[in-house]
Amino acid sequence: MPILNKDMTLCISLAARPSNIGTRFHNYLYDALNLNYVYKAFAPKDLAQAVAGIRGLGIRGAAVSMPYKEDVIAMIDVMDASAAAIDSVNTIVNNDGVLTAYNTDYLAIAELLATHKVPADFTVLLRGSGGMAKAVAAAVRDAGLTHVSIVARNEEAGKALAGLYGFGWLAEVGPATADLLINVTPLGMAGSEESSQSFDDATVAAAQIVFDVVALPSETPLIQAARAAGKPVITGAEVIAIQAAEQFVLYTGVRPSPELVREASEFSRSQ
Amino acid sequence: MPILNKDMTLCISLAARPSNIGTRFHNYLYDALNLNYVYKAFAPKDLAQAVAGIRGLGIRGAAVSMPYKEDVIAMIDVMDASAAAIDSVNTIVNNDGVLTAYNTDYLAIAELLATHKVPADFTVLLRGSGGMAKAVAAAVRDAGLTHVSIVARNEEAGKALAGLYGFGWLAEVGPATADLLINVTPLGMAGSEESSQSFDDATVAAAQIVFDVVALPSETPLIQAARAAGKPVITGAEVIAIQAAEQFVLYTGVRPSPELVREASEFSRSQ
Repeated sequence: MPILNKDMTLCISLAARPSNIGTRFHNYLYDALNLNYVYKAFAPKDLAQAVAGIRGLGIRGAAVSMPYKEDVIAMIDVMDASAAAIDSVNTIVNNDGVLTAYNTDYLAIAELLATHKVPADFTVLLRGSGGMAKAVAAAVRDAGLTHVSIVARNEEAGKALAGLYGFGWLAEVGPATADLLINVTPLGMAGSEESSQSFDDATVAAAQIVFDVVALPSETPLIQAARAAGKPVITGAEVIAIQAAEQFVLYTGVRPSPELVREASEFSRSQ
Repeated sequence: MPILNKDMTLCISLAARPSNIGTRFHNYLYDALNLNYVYKAFAPKDLAQAVAGIRGLGIRGAAVSMPYKEDVIAMIDVMDASAAAIDSVNTIVNNDGVLTAYNTDYLAIAELLATHKVPADFTVLLRGSGGMAKAVAAAVRDAGLTHVSIVARNEEAGKALAGLYGFGWLAEVGPATADLLINVTPLGMAGSEESSQSFDDATVAAAQIVFDVVALPSETPLIQAARAAGKPVITGAEVIAIQAAEQFVLYTGVRPSPELVREASEFSRSQ
């Protein structure tokens, strides 16, 4: 029985099609750490009025997902470097009515490239050209990787993203190979493209590390192929857990242990 | 552990100094009736932005308390008769972005006068002249009671309220007596006036029914004096439970049994 109390601090998410992952992840940690917070996902009817509600109701923080990551910029007061660098917001923190925007996807990708010790001289194929691809490209560039090709059928978007970071552009993976493969498209995501493998078996066989940001499911055809080929993988489940943990720190000022983040992440995906 | 889910419908309250009663009452009933709703009190930073948030986040309903019951009128779309009759709102219902305002305090007082079978020829002393006193005076008038005196030290407010309904006005209770005594002032409320008895023992002794709208505590000095004198009482706990149950019906479309309302009311006051 969710018996709330009047003093609980509310954090929310704003997404056109919310999942339960954030709601379960944050509430699990609030309980484990005995914080008087509560979290709930919303599919806003109107973005500007929802952001007004963050101020008017004194909501502490908001995760921002598709398709609001860029539109929300005009409604906030301060852009943290993580969001300003890529003109994309996935987190709002409300300090007494002053809204500051962050991008914890960028922070999570940067952390994962570091913890997986991706060498700066690795060649990279980065498939995708949307908002999340921009966060990944920025983190890849900031990790010192320079031999990077953006793979995107949309020539305009692909070339624009490649141009931002001095990367190359390819319309198709074709015969290309690279040490690090990163999928930032919906290929492999639950829905119509669940059975699509974003890089083929031969490309996987030639790679050293395979990274898929798709989180639902995190065992995409690409990740399964990489595991079958004995390659180290970085999954979307790791990205979503780390970016959510960074949001948690921004909202509460408390950093949960990696063990607790793992527990919360498992719990969040168990339903 | 309040593990919420993304599909829960949120209802809220807006009050400068919220209590836990509404939060506990509504969440208890949601659980008992297996409704996927959740309720939380807010002390808004800005009323207009909070109401924008009701629309923007798709919040289903909001209780409105002091000091917002009149200011909120300018922000809603449709005034139900219960609110329009007294220019005072204590409930907002959001139907796909159309906000309709109600006053369930009025509805609760009217219901209590009926269930306690207050005769239309009773004389009445109604002490108070604020927004809630207006709801009570309207319900008293609509119950057919005409021999009513408003008791209020504030001459302007007291005469204005009396004038609205064709009632008399007294600055002090003085030597007056009546069949029905109704306190709608903070006298007896937790805080600085907790020990004040709004009608003295002699006035209580001359009365037939004693009604106090103070809900925290509901056993005010007036109610205690009336019980000691063997008089039937109507308490603020009854008012708050019935008005909250009417809000519950407006938000969910489900009418809880009187037994369940009693349970929820006891639970809401147990902390």
